Amino acid sequence: MTENELIALLRSAATDPAARGLDDDVAVLALGETHLVLTHDMIVEGVHYLPTDPPADVAWKLLAANLSDLAAKGAEPVGALLGYMLGEDGWDRAFAEGLTTALAAFGLSLLGGDTVAASAGMPRTLGLTAIGRSRRTPPSRAGARVGDLLWVTGSIGDAGAGLAVLRGELEGESALIERYRNPRPRLEAGQRLAGFVTAMMDVSDGLLIDASRMAKTSGCAVAIELQSVPLSQAYLHARGDAREARLDACTAGDDYELLFAASADSARRILALAEEIGLPCSRIGAFGDGSGVTITDRSEPVALPQKLGFEHRA
Amino acid sequence: MTENELIALLRSAATDPAARGLDDDVAVLALGETHLVLTHDMIVEGVHYLPTDPPADVAWKLLAANLSDLAAKGAEPVGALLGYMLGEDGWDRAFAEGLTTALAAFGLSLLGGDTVAASAGMPRTLGLTAIGRSRRTPPSRAGARVGDLLWVTGSIGDAGAGLAVLRGELEGESALIERYRNPRPRLEAGQRLAGFVTAMMDVSDGLLIDASRMAKTSGCAVAIELQSVPLSQAYLHARGDAREARLDACTAGDDYELLFAASADSARRILALAEEIGLPCSRIGAFGDGSGVTITDRSEPVALPQKLGFEHRA
Repeated sequence: MTENELIALLRSAATDPAARGLDDDVAVLALGETHLVLTHDMIVEGVHYLPTDPPADVAWKLLAANLSDLAAKGAEPVGALLGYMLGEDGWDRAFAEGLTTALAAFGLSLLGGDTVAASAGMPRTLGLTAIGRSRRTPPSRAGARVGDLLWVTGSIGDAGAGLAVLRGELEGESALIERYRNPRPRLEAGQRLAGFVTAMMDVSDGLLIDASRMAKTSGCAVAIELQSVPLSQAYLHARGDAREARLDACTAGDDYELLFAASADSARRILALAEEIGLPCSRIGAFGDGSGVTITDRSEPVALPQKLGFEHRA
Repeated sequence: MTENELIALLRSAATDPAARGLDDDVAVLALGETHLVLTHDMIVEGVHYLPTDPPADVAWKLLAANLSDLAAKGAEPVGALLGYMLGEDGWDRAFAEGLTTALAAFGLSLLGGDTVAASAGMPRTLGLTAIGRSRRTPPSRAGARVGDLLWVTGSIGDAGAGLAVLRGELEGESALIERYRNPRPRLEAGQRLAGFVTAMMDVSDGLLIDASRMAKTSGCAVAIELQSVPLSQAYLHARGDAREARLDACTAGDDYELLFAASADSARRILALAEEIGLPCSRIGAFGDGSGVTITDRSEPVALPQKLGFEHRA
């Protein structure tokens, strides 16, 4: 069963408006003047991280992946609950140290959680619930309107290239591995953008699949300009700038950048904000009538790749 | 590494008072006049449930175990985030139906979550974060005072006996299996008791180990009277009333009853409340100076069993 099939089965149980119909990456509880934003992500050894990844980096990534969801809602992190599978002492110790470091780096507190024991030889499964707060109503992924522009922060594809380097499939700089192991949730950008974007989400499963999800829940089509997708120098060094390299960047996932829609007259404000916080924001497409995602490369239509990104499937 | 060792490593990261020093089963966020109570529990196939347990019962138990933590804080359930490992279609479908039923039965909404794919042959690991709210400050497990009495709701040992029946180790009534597969979190009792108990927690790992934890965090000793521990008719039929049967009941776990401390002058109020809501509350011991747990059986000292309950250990 796919994630979408499970969500379809569970949608009738999402009776509270805080669930946002299970269409968003987060739940949003309105409590007086505060909006509490809640998200839960899991990672599995061998699927979301390599067995050889340093435990401190696994802790960082588990936290950062959750905080990236808070960032996309403009929320300030408050705390985290950890679901931990106990294993080998040295690994557990290094994970705990790494998690402590990561929590301090992002300024939030561990609030609680649970532990279970791993069976022998079983891949570790870890979960984390992050809690954030916001004064304003957090943007959903469903608010993009026909005519809005599509933007993304930072650069795309680095983490996927970093994974390929770790697997020995690609030669590349350590900066790529760093992006794979130590993603930086775009908390400041998210908080600053949340006031005027029409839709926002993070890029975790791949730019194309995540953009198509935003378009679908918003009831629009989205057209992506491949030549505008921001690639880092490290990515270009490793992969070059051919169309295939660009498409690979757009489907690799693990980017933890912010993908957002905004009206065309917000463009100047977005570029000024990007300058101010030192994080590029690139306009990569636009929303239109209809449905689905289309790609062009310097105005030339490009066939969609068979896989738009990572899909959760048993 | 044990859960306690991990908690010791992570305690410095629990900087927010909402974490309660990681000494409680929940986090408590004060937001204006509302206290938000958050808890996260995981279950692993073969550890917390049998591979042959019906998927709908696994869903019920996952939710009920979390709601039991909310019950012990007198909180009203608001919603849940699910961390789900996708597997075989029929199992997933039955789980989703069971979770929908359980959420409706307890009156809360699914709010969101995450899915991951299981690797072949890997035991399923599921997590759930439950969110509740309370108008009053939820009782901790650390507030018991010397002279307080120790109480427990319902009956102890049924779930452990139910597991033994399922394993073919014991003959017993289906009511025991029901207690193992479909625990009933004591939400109403918890909400009614929270206003005047000095400490409260649920019994999930075993009465003796959980009572010893309450005593330890409260800085007291606790003396338990074995003959006063409430056993159901079904338990007595299956196991009899010998001392060994009573000790087994006190160490089996999965009871999801409420364990609470209250001053001696609250006894009449507790018994009246028990009568009113139709759930027995039994006085089973008292807190005293010192530390540790001691057991008597009709005033005769009883040696502690080697295992006081279930300990989370890798």
